Amino acid sequence: MNMPNATSAAAPGTVEFWFDFASNYSYPSIMRIEAEAARRGANVVWRPILLGAIFRSFGWNTSPFVLQPIKGAYVWKDMVRQCRKYGLEWTPPSRFPRSALLPLRVACFGAEQPWIGAFCKRIATLNFVDDQDIEDTDRVAQVLTNLGLSAAPIIAQALGDANKLALRRQTEAARTLGIFGAPSFVVDGEIYWGDDRLDDALDRCAELCR
Amino acid sequence: MNMPNATSAAAPGTVEFWFDFASNYSYPSIMRIEAEAARRGANVVWRPILLGAIFRSFGWNTSPFVLQPIKGAYVWKDMVRQCRKYGLEWTPPSRFPRSALLPLRVACFGAEQPWIGAFCKRIATLNFVDDQDIEDTDRVAQVLTNLGLSAAPIIAQALGDANKLALRRQTEAARTLGIFGAPSFVVDGEIYWGDDRLDDALDRCAELCR
Repeated sequence: MNMPNATSAAAPGTVEFWFDFASNYSYPSIMRIEAEAARRGANVVWRPILLGAIFRSFGWNTSPFVLQPIKGAYVWKDMVRQCRKYGLEWTPPSRFPRSALLPLRVACFGAEQPWIGAFCKRIATLNFVDDQDIEDTDRVAQVLTNLGLSAAPIIAQALGDANKLALRRQTEAARTLGIFGAPSFVVDGEIYWGDDRLDDALDRCAELCR
Repeated sequence: MNMPNATSAAAPGTVEFWFDFASNYSYPSIMRIEAEAARRGANVVWRPILLGAIFRSFGWNTSPFVLQPIKGAYVWKDMVRQCRKYGLEWTPPSRFPRSALLPLRVACFGAEQPWIGAFCKRIATLNFVDDQDIEDTDRVAQVLTNLGLSAAPIIAQALGDANKLALRRQTEAARTLGIFGAPSFVVDGEIYWGDDRLDDALDRCAELCR
């Protein structure tokens, strides 16, 4: 009965995790999702997207937290509290939102590889703990090398036309599904928006597998 | 050392609850806050505001959930799940956002009365469960009567110039504090935004009282 589409392709017990390294609320989700999913026997499908392209489709040229300063001021205080609650390190980024095209392309290329979770956590940490430029090729290569991988061929393929197109198509698929922000989680065709809904999405995963 | 202002007036162990009956995410907070605060020995200060006036200060003529339809479509699905999670009834309102000036004025007038919590829960239920017009004077009077109160003098005072001004001033105080949405909670001068932060705000209250 299921029609094949971006969502129904996911098996029961699977959460699709739509994220952008530039997105501050994606950071706690990137850091938490593997352990929280494992605790419930759920699988994570990593779906990097270009959140800026989605924002531009709404006529916004940057993050709403920049466009609406009163909300932005709140968000940086909220991040301190949220990270403290989860036991995560946190440094306010000196640049926000940070360009993340290269690591997003690597994540798109490696989404089904066993190193995807560790790679994403390291890039997110570089942005939101170490306050480093994550668009720097040497730095991204170093992350891959530190994971015991051959960085050069991975980056070459990440920068290939097929993979560039795959990331753009995945971003279009997000818009088609009705995703308007990151992080978003999709379980059984239902969108859960925001790090605040990670647990609800995974609980729903676990419920579907019972 | 504390300078008197809208926030420092609140005693330790107090959460200021800034809400609007028109706001859908204020509904679960209105229904939950008394029991959750009591469980932690915290006091609730009820602070009704005209959220529409805050939105207009951003150049928005209605709710962002109306202005941004893709987000609005998500929100109504999220409300179903959130209310189910909390064991609250929920009916999608046939009008949104609903005008709520009269009950907000009554809530402003009665904010320190023992009936404030019950009144707010009944008005929120009329909007988001019974799908009724909450601006109707007879209906608001009936809510007060059902609480064993003399409706006519309460409504007369709620509609008096002093109380109308008090509600406008409270809305201005919200903006001055940096409140940009509802529900918002203020504990020890810190803003917590959204029903998702109710528990964090009350946990902070309890922490301050230990």
